[in-house]
Amino acid sequence: MATLATKLAPPPTKEHVSVARLARYWYAACRSRDLHRKPQARTVIGVPLVLFRDAAGRAGALLDRCPHRNIPLSMGRIAASGNLECGYHGWQFDGEGRCRLVPGLQGSENGEARGRRVAAHATRERDGFVWVWGEPDVEPACEPPAFAAAPGPGYATIVRVLDFPGTLHATAENALDVPHTAFLHRGLFRGSGERNEIRAVVRRGPDRVEAEYIGEPRPEGFLGRLLAPQGGVVEHWDRFVLPSIAQVEYRLGSENHLLVTSLCTPLDDFTTRMYAVVAFRLRLPTALIRPLVTPLAMRVLRQDAAVLRAQTETVRRFGGEQFVSTEIDLLGPHIWRLLRDAEAGSLPAADGTGELAVVREVRFQA
Amino acid sequence: MATLATKLAPPPTKEHVSVARLARYWYAACRSRDLHRKPQARTVIGVPLVLFRDAAGRAGALLDRCPHRNIPLSMGRIAASGNLECGYHGWQFDGEGRCRLVPGLQGSENGEARGRRVAAHATRERDGFVWVWGEPDVEPACEPPAFAAAPGPGYATIVRVLDFPGTLHATAENALDVPHTAFLHRGLFRGSGERNEIRAVVRRGPDRVEAEYIGEPRPEGFLGRLLAPQGGVVEHWDRFVLPSIAQVEYRLGSENHLLVTSLCTPLDDFTTRMYAVVAFRLRLPTALIRPLVTPLAMRVLRQDAAVLRAQTETVRRFGGEQFVSTEIDLLGPHIWRLLRDAEAGSLPAADGTGELAVVREVRFQA
Amino acid sequence: MATLATKLAPPPTKEHVSVARLARYWYAACRSRDLHRKPQARTVIGVPLVLFRDAAGRAGALLDRCPHRNIPLSMGRIAASGNLECGYHGWQFDGEGRCRLVPGLQGSENGEARGRRVAAHATRERDGFVWVWGEPDVEPACEPPAFAAAPGPGYATIVRVLDFPGTLHATAENALDVPHTAFLHRGLFRGSGERNEIRAVVRRGPDRVEAEYIGEPRPEGFLGRLLAPQGGVVEHWDRFVLPSIAQVEYRLGSENHLLVTSLCTPLDDFTTRMYAVVAFRLRLPTALIRPLVTPLAMRVLRQDAAVLRAQTETVRRFGGEQFVSTEIDLLGPHIWRLLRDAEAGSLPAADGTGELAVVREVRFQA
Repeated sequence: MATLATKLAPPPTKEHVSVARLARYWYAACRSRDLHRKPQARTVIGVPLVLFRDAAGRAGALLDRCPHRNIPLSMGRIAASGNLECGYHGWQFDGEGRCRLVPGLQGSENGEARGRRVAAHATRERDGFVWVWGEPDVEPACEPPAFAAAPGPGYATIVRVLDFPGTLHATAENALDVPHTAFLHRGLFRGSGERNEIRAVVRRGPDRVEAEYIGEPRPEGFLGRLLAPQGGVVEHWDRFVLPSIAQVEYRLGSENHLLVTSLCTPLDDFTTRMYAVVAFRLRLPTALIRPLVTPLAMRVLRQDAAVLRAQTETVRRFGGEQFVSTEIDLLGPHIWRLLRDAEAGSLPAADGTGELAVVREVRFQA
Repeated sequence: MATLATKLAPPPTKEHVSVARLARYWYAACRSRDLHRKPQARTVIGVPLVLFRDAAGRAGALLDRCPHRNIPLSMGRIAASGNLECGYHGWQFDGEGRCRLVPGLQGSENGEARGRRVAAHATRERDGFVWVWGEPDVEPACEPPAFAAAPGPGYATIVRVLDFPGTLHATAENALDVPHTAFLHRGLFRGSGERNEIRAVVRRGPDRVEAEYIGEPRPEGFLGRLLAPQGGVVEHWDRFVLPSIAQVEYRLGSENHLLVTSLCTPLDDFTTRMYAVVAFRLRLPTALIRPLVTPLAMRVLRQDAAVLRAQTETVRRFGGEQFVSTEIDLLGPHIWRLLRDAEAGSLPAADGTGELAVVREVRFQA
Repeated sequence: MATLATKLAPPPTKEHVSVARLARYWYAACRSRDLHRKPQARTVIGVPLVLFRDAAGRAGALLDRCPHRNIPLSMGRIAASGNLECGYHGWQFDGEGRCRLVPGLQGSENGEARGRRVAAHATRERDGFVWVWGEPDVEPACEPPAFAAAPGPGYATIVRVLDFPGTLHATAENALDVPHTAFLHRGLFRGSGERNEIRAVVRRGPDRVEAEYIGEPRPEGFLGRLLAPQGGVVEHWDRFVLPSIAQVEYRLGSENHLLVTSLCTPLDDFTTRMYAVVAFRLRLPTALIRPLVTPLAMRVLRQDAAVLRAQTETVRRFGGEQFVSTEIDLLGPHIWRLLRDAEAGSLPAADGTGELAVVREVRFQA
């Protein structure tokens, strides 16, 4: 049976994407409303950071390690001066990472000195999030993306935070993947009853990939009936934008619009924090939607988290991913290619205005 | 004291046996009665498998990883078709590992395709166990061994399953080792009172080793008094058969016969699952034996598990085994040699009919 | 900003001290009063040991691994012979590590034999501790140090044992470090109020370093007021003696004398067991001191343990220490240098009588 064994040789194992190499991008590091005067420890692309607000209320993001004795600065406090004070010996640092005080030390050398500085990451606050640039001690090449904003007036917004035990690639693909919903979320999200042929057009730009679904009927199940009791055809797009935005958009007539934007911040190569921003304008009263949809959505997200955990454990147990895709895996392989190119540094940090070109049309049953 | 240090240099550290290299053998993977329609995750020689029954009730054993997105197939279910359905995207596989359905995918490509197959292991059901061949995608070289069967009519059987935190070698030696019983199981199994000289004959065959004890008095302690209230001489054999069978046999006159067969299935190099099959025909009523002996036997097994755990931790802490044996370690060194030869592939899968030859006679106090 | 990045390049990462290489020294392994007939498992410089008392009450220290089947000897018991008996097969060892019995084995070979010996460490009992020499099977080059003894009659002594999740270097520096007390132990130990200029003289000998503080006012806070209600100037020394003694000494007039000796026994490279011996002769009644000071001291030690844990985790996360010191880190860099020299074997095991020479004078605010 050597011939069979050869024929069945698995595809070569892929290394995972090393998120530490995706440094020249913005990442959502925390919600603005969660950052007060108390320093917060947050990890972004594997880098432990301490976030804090200085005397002027500006968000600072420093490497979470005092240069003196390597204690996490997040164990410290904000001093009366507005500087961040280490909890061990009281060294103080400003939002740029400069050492401003070494208590007890006399003379002109006190304060800033070569070697006493902490690496500092640029920050921005936008659309309710503190964004951090992945590379320390440099000027960002662009501004944070606008995807987390509500698309206009009249929209309600729900934000939820959830850690996924999956790679950035697996988490983003899962967030944008249509075929799994009939199985992993059986009964909750889509039924597995009658199937319809749907056409999907995949468009690719320099920093993104998007699938548009054409001819998709109103989704079955509870969520679909809630959104569009009269049935009809849905407009539906799934988008991935480098390095960490997964967006699902649904329109049903002029009345219903749902935009789920997942800001996927890699904590390390195998854990991804998702800030899910759900913006919607629906024919049903928001007061009704919120208590009905939130528990349902959280249940879906927990099912996704469970499958990502099992996937990650299996991948690590086998020493790497060995994925086989078909043409109905519309976005996953493109996301992988985009992340790999970004990791290799062959992509400029794009401003999101690049032209999209059709790369594939697929028909499938859903 | 350099001379002393040299004299005391420990024996070279042995690497442990790599169970992944013992692939060309049968292993008990679960009890037949525990395998219903629900897929079961089982690990055999380090390989994660999913066991299930297809529509015809046949046991299938596939690598527990969907080729699509590397989810454990054991998280799935049996579809109406009788195929195993992955819980993430619903891909279906038959008992041979062939992909039979990719939901949503259109056209002739649907179903089996190069790269979508899962590695499959041959299975057999015999004597109440599902046996799995360690190497995937090949025809087994022989049939599973018959040791788990009761030796004849009129025997009662008790089966217990227990995981030992020990290597296959350590677990099998422990199961067959006489001298430790007076110490580890002091008071329970053998006393440490008066000792008698016993003669043991060790016989070795191509795939096995056996010790026969001659002149052994009735064991002291509760178990011995139960078995043979009138005392007398015991016939006693301890056997190891490659790669995983440890068997203890006692006869006392024509009336009493006890056969404890331990099917030792390595989960990984340092964990061994033992399926203990206790077959007996005794002068006492079985209804009396069962409630008395089972708790006692389980206590003995738990003491063995505790000592194997401590041994394994110590061996790993020191980077490998450094065992020193004496001539009264009758079987351990032979088991080690047999496993090493099997690991090196220098032993054919034997059918158990090879001639046994005496390799040693030993007298000791027990 | 490449220039800035270059300027900010961190100091090179230091490997930690490997305590296994600090073998030619004495370490406190347990308190004498805690060692009875039951064998005790203790780890010293990464070596698992079993401590026990033989029939004559002498403390033995053997490698905690039976040469037969590598079970920890500490799972055994003391036999009637006074030897240490392994719990698995009953092999017996004396305090020198010689095998004295292999149960069941006949003939002249029984007992001691090449390969059956266990490595043995020299022991001494002194000042209430069992000391163990770090290298096995050799005669110690000197006797254990006398630091744990009370300095004279009329002293009360409190002994406490605490495990610190820190390297030997970090734990010893922390025990002797003055500047952190105003921050980590804010309010408990020193205030952060008015500061005074203090002069410190650092003296160094072949196996030790000592700082003497001159002009230090009575410490603020509860402890200071208790010690010297009338205020005044304190005499204060901090000492480190290779490889593991950190000592803090305070005198206030002829009446008050406090000597805190920390015997720092490395369990492994990142965990240090501290036997803190607090000897004192104060103007206040001992009966008053004990219940007041003990809880306070334990609270201080727990704060130190927490910061050492965070430091160790951060150091390991970043792959090594990257410490930056100033001139008011009086002892830490010297302790590091002494440990490094000891690790390299370039220091003789000293008898503590070497001359001390002034290496630095520093003025600072405290």
